[in-house]
Amino acid sequence: MDKNTKGITVKKIEDMSEWYGQVVTKAALADYSPIRGCMIIRPRGYALWTAIQTFFDKHIKANGVENAYFPMFIPESFFKKEAEHAEGFSPEVAWVEQKSDVEERLALRPTSETIMYDSYSRWIRSWRDLPLKINQWCNIIRWEVKDTKIFLRSREFLWQEGHCVYESEKECDKDTRHYLELYRKVAEELLAVPVLVGTKTKNDTFPGAVRSYAIEAFMPDGKALQMGTSHMLGQGFAKSFDIKYLGRDGGWERPWQNSWGISTRMIGSVVLQHGDDKGLVLPPRMVDKKIAIVPIQVKDADVNKKVLAQAEEIAATLKKYNPILDDRDEYSMGWKFNEHELHGVPLRIEIGPKDLEKGHVVLARRDTGEKAFVPFAEVHDEVRSLLDVIQDDMFNRAKQHMTTNTVHVKSWEDFIQADKDKKLIFAAHCSENDCEEAIKEETEGVTARCVPFKDAKTTDNCVKCGKAAAYNVYFARAY
Amino acid sequence: MDKNTKGITVKKIEDMSEWYGQVVTKAALADYSPIRGCMIIRPRGYALWTAIQTFFDKHIKANGVENAYFPMFIPESFFKKEAEHAEGFSPEVAWVEQKSDVEERLALRPTSETIMYDSYSRWIRSWRDLPLKINQWCNIIRWEVKDTKIFLRSREFLWQEGHCVYESEKECDKDTRHYLELYRKVAEELLAVPVLVGTKTKNDTFPGAVRSYAIEAFMPDGKALQMGTSHMLGQGFAKSFDIKYLGRDGGWERPWQNSWGISTRMIGSVVLQHGDDKGLVLPPRMVDKKIAIVPIQVKDADVNKKVLAQAEEIAATLKKYNPILDDRDEYSMGWKFNEHELHGVPLRIEIGPKDLEKGHVVLARRDTGEKAFVPFAEVHDEVRSLLDVIQDDMFNRAKQHMTTNTVHVKSWEDFIQADKDKKLIFAAHCSENDCEEAIKEETEGVTARCVPFKDAKTTDNCVKCGKAAAYNVYFARAY
Repeated sequence: MDKNTKGITVKKIEDMSEWYGQVVTKAALADYSPIRGCMIIRPRGYALWTAIQTFFDKHIKANGVENAYFPMFIPESFFKKEAEHAEGFSPEVAWVEQKSDVEERLALRPTSETIMYDSYSRWIRSWRDLPLKINQWCNIIRWEVKDTKIFLRSREFLWQEGHCVYESEKECDKDTRHYLELYRKVAEELLAVPVLVGTKTKNDTFPGAVRSYAIEAFMPDGKALQMGTSHMLGQGFAKSFDIKYLGRDGGWERPWQNSWGISTRMIGSVVLQHGDDKGLVLPPRMVDKKIAIVPIQVKDADVNKKVLAQAEEIAATLKKYNPILDDRDEYSMGWKFNEHELHGVPLRIEIGPKDLEKGHVVLARRDTGEKAFVPFAEVHDEVRSLLDVIQDDMFNRAKQHMTTNTVHVKSWEDFIQADKDKKLIFAAHCSENDCEEAIKEETEGVTARCVPFKDAKTTDNCVKCGKAAAYNVYFARAY
Repeated sequence: MDKNTKGITVKKIEDMSEWYGQVVTKAALADYSPIRGCMIIRPRGYALWTAIQTFFDKHIKANGVENAYFPMFIPESFFKKEAEHAEGFSPEVAWVEQKSDVEERLALRPTSETIMYDSYSRWIRSWRDLPLKINQWCNIIRWEVKDTKIFLRSREFLWQEGHCVYESEKECDKDTRHYLELYRKVAEELLAVPVLVGTKTKNDTFPGAVRSYAIEAFMPDGKALQMGTSHMLGQGFAKSFDIKYLGRDGGWERPWQNSWGISTRMIGSVVLQHGDDKGLVLPPRMVDKKIAIVPIQVKDADVNKKVLAQAEEIAATLKKYNPILDDRDEYSMGWKFNEHELHGVPLRIEIGPKDLEKGHVVLARRDTGEKAFVPFAEVHDEVRSLLDVIQDDMFNRAKQHMTTNTVHVKSWEDFIQADKDKKLIFAAHCSENDCEEAIKEETEGVTARCVPFKDAKTTDNCVKCGKAAAYNVYFARAY
């Protein structure tokens, strides 16, 4: 935090968009780029991405996925092979200025299905080559025309995209759901962001996919945030790219495919979900430096020396939590507190001359502001358990918020009211695209978020058109 | 290895270029891309890149460097701020097709000095913000017009680029050399590729830098391979981008900067340096799966079962080396041996019925082909020490090759002869650009590789023009 920079100057509840921009930039997670719609991910923000990568990469490798890297240039003709896919992405594609030694137009990847499956068609020969499970961590370009927002909607972002090929539909669908389950784990267990888990409506299915699954979070301003998707691609891409294999019976077979991705957007969800008027609140598991230790300085140099020595001793016992020992003498105690709060450091330990006398420290939680006196000898154990408590409490509060703000509506009037009240709306729907579009138009923005895996069955009629409903759906405005 | 794919069909010594292409693609490190001059890094190749990342990232973090991510789009005006830099990169830059909502032309980053330093000029205010040490792992676009070659010269590649800012010239230069030393460690300690360490001649200095340092390897075909560079940028970029800070004395000061990078090119050096006519030879430290265990199958199912049980037991004791237990029954023993050799697996363990009776296994080194009988109980200890021995032997053989092929020449005739003999040439030089260019022209390709930190002093005259020499330089043809 620059000495000249004030803290967050707007309350979260009053203007969440302005608040978000301030938190992201003032806590130095990211910065605006000189290129409109792009972002600069600063070390503090990149560390959160690294935490997500580390957590998720371990899980996919345990499932037999290997990392690779495909070119970011995709020939125009590749897009054209899968018509729906091409149509879905065409408004957002950025192209390279033609070079004299290149025959066709090259796109900057908005997603890599086409370039990867072109290779797959050459690599896959026999059932012995399956399942093929490849992932890549890379940058993605989508020329967004809507308002851009750091992490949430950006013309360049970082993501992972997994692309697998299987012998059977069943195996493919099972694994597609497995990656969604891993996304749920990332969101709920690492980010402490509770999510809905379900299927996208036809209207919102990935271009070229048979079925899209998604996890959706619910933000404090009443808007949903799509956190990750996995797509059952069926055999469409395999046909378009002529991927086939010699089956166990000796004949040529068509394989089944999926693709799945999460991005730096996830970082935005953490900011929105947990942050407060003082700045970031980070779930302990995402943070490398989990504790800020602030020795309270007085005018007596000898006393300060003793306090610092005790602070260093405590820091040593907490080494595995990478504590920040904040002994800078050019800043006041209050300024330091504000900075660590802005940065979302989960725990603060204060120790001053009086604490030294009494043999305890003050342990302050970032998420609740609660403070407790903890004897020196108990600091390590208390920190260990408190970090878990904070992680759980953050998740539970967010979950509670989602639950209490969900309303099951049965009439269009109630639907409209629930939208006005910024609720997460659960309602029966006929599944028709036109009806879904009508809801969006009439409400100026409410969309179907997902058909949950649980509780989708209904005997009600469609909340909008009154015809027999196909399922229950979650509706909300969305980021 | 596809059943239909033969092994390497050309000897390394006879046609190293063809041999290289075959090894890289047949060992599935990488594949040609449908876009000319780009490459697809397959899981086996990406795993080598991950090994380099893991090794290096730990070292730079220990030195206080943090990772970040900057946009890949760079406004044209940024390049123009540093004239030499712009001129140096202009032939290789690829541009984005103009979008209606963007005012100026956007380049795809060929390197990120300009976009990063634009941010630095806003982030750096006081001496307390220094040193600033940021690195990014990303893709890079350079539209190469020379012949491209997977890993070695590609229009898109992966790299890391570090960009630091310091208060003093001394601190800056010291750290610039420190990153070079880390590159030496990556090359020599991880890749087992010995390198020359030194300064680039003026002619070959990074556009915009005051001084460039480099590590240079010497390949079996007599060509040098630049493996990594670190650049002392001085204050040029700081001036162009108006980076300044309030110094300890309260006045505005101009900081000092460096930048440094290594890329997926390093993977190419491993292939060239260590590979043989059977395929890849990988240094054990770079490989996750260090051992292939092949149970030898016979016609007796009961015997096979016992052999397999023993192989599994051995695999269990070697768990930390991630052994591949190759119990596939659709492939012959010979085919399996060939495959693991092609892939460069450092050690192979064979165990058949006779070995079972005798209570030993056959342990075969990939690098030398040597085989030894090792009693079951000694396998673990033998493997552990042998992996270190292989790593050291690979380095020492390569070092020996470099040493015996280095000639110190004092006359132009000897220089010409040494070039014909494909030697690494050590000679005194006047340091003049024109003279260096004359050498390149007359020999059709020999260039100054580096002025070594050691043994650069000389009282000789320039090997080409006969004037007083400024230093000794290594000369070679280069990749």
